[in-house]
Amino acid sequence: MNVLIVHAHPEPKSFSGALMRTAFEEFTSQGHSVLISDLYAMKWNPVASSGDFCRRTNKDYLVYAMEQRHNYENGSLADDVAAEIEKVKWCDLLVFNFPIYWFSEPAILKGWIDRVMVSGLFYGGRRIYSAGGMRGKRAMVTVTLGGREHMFGPEAIHGELEAMLRPLLQGTFGYCGFGVLPPFAAYHVPYISDYARNKILNDYRQWLGDLNSLTPVRMPSLEHFDQEFRPL
Amino acid sequence: MNVLIVHAHPEPKSFSGALMRTAFEEFTSQGHSVLISDLYAMKWNPVASSGDFCRRTNKDYLVYAMEQRHNYENGSLADDVAAEIEKVKWCDLLVFNFPIYWFSEPAILKGWIDRVMVSGLFYGGRRIYSAGGMRGKRAMVTVTLGGREHMFGPEAIHGELEAMLRPLLQGTFGYCGFGVLPPFAAYHVPYISDYARNKILNDYRQWLGDLNSLTPVRMPSLEHFDQEFRPL
Repeated sequence: MNVLIVHAHPEPKSFSGALMRTAFEEFTSQGHSVLISDLYAMKWNPVASSGDFCRRTNKDYLVYAMEQRHNYENGSLADDVAAEIEKVKWCDLLVFNFPIYWFSEPAILKGWIDRVMVSGLFYGGRRIYSAGGMRGKRAMVTVTLGGREHMFGPEAIHGELEAMLRPLLQGTFGYCGFGVLPPFAAYHVPYISDYARNKILNDYRQWLGDLNSLTPVRMPSLEHFDQEFRPL
Repeated sequence: MNVLIVHAHPEPKSFSGALMRTAFEEFTSQGHSVLISDLYAMKWNPVASSGDFCRRTNKDYLVYAMEQRHNYENGSLADDVAAEIEKVKWCDLLVFNFPIYWFSEPAILKGWIDRVMVSGLFYGGRRIYSAGGMRGKRAMVTVTLGGREHMFGPEAIHGELEAMLRPLLQGTFGYCGFGVLPPFAAYHVPYISDYARNKILNDYRQWLGDLNSLTPVRMPSLEHFDQEFRPL
């Protein structure tokens, strides 16, 4: 299969970077093809703006999603956005690899989502969730955290990890119709030994070697909602 | 009281902008002082990087939160970050005003959080949640959405709005000790009439006029957890 890893960490020697390289090696050794978008290395511009559109349908008032749809259809999106879209079209599995900043992804990755996942292709009108534009592809997140594992869970101080990642798992991947794999999380990373880090990298290799055995995260299915998305 | 509104919308004439101006007028008419950080107008840089620190404690390996702490204490943060921190210190109420992009805030606002809410001042060590650095201040979000109100709720297709906003309400505001007001949401904004928009602006004025009557969103309290944040 084809794998796109979107990586976002400001330190090239970070453990998040080690996870990215481990995934590259593991997928390659399995015979898969891997592309990496290393957003810091690419100096990715994360700010959604009118500059993303070479042909505005309305020059006086920016409705960002409408211009996305119009410019995607007309092939007039900014070059950096268009190049990332081609990578997503090519891939069967999309991996976001990043450190958790404030219960979510660093802004540079949020801005990849805002700009690249354009209306018209990824979703649009009633084409969301089980009817989303990315049906047939899969997606997952691989995250590093400062917190310890016992700080995440139903009774834990921060609550459940999947609830924390809801805007990504449901609001981004699930919304577009990706099959959503459970997150891979490396806890307490700034404070652990090299031995513990190597154990995580080994666990990650095993995880990546057996993705088909993972139970996807449940997402809403349109068959349970009416034409206006009211529950049936 | 002193109010800081951090506003993030790429279209100056947006309804989100109208909400921001309504808040400015309403708070001012109540005798409060208001500052606005209009991130698009400021051309805010949302990318957390080593450039945020004039004096690195470790020049070979960037641990972003550690450098935040060190540079905050030494007064050597980047000027744009330091200026925003002064505004937050000054304010009693922090308002994030933005359109929902992918169940969360636009990247330009995420990058304000990543860069401005520095370790050492906003939180640090055991100073989180009820012991967070922003204890005594309040915070809220004011959001516009494309979706309709019936798409949010316990049985609704997207789930509950507060669950969607968890990384902001709990992971950002609550984590730092802000008292968290419930979100104000304007639904279906791209599709509604001027009459409906004016009604929302009136509802918002009333909401802002009676903030003390709102029930804060529940956050974890450290008294329920041990020294390692395990549930007692």
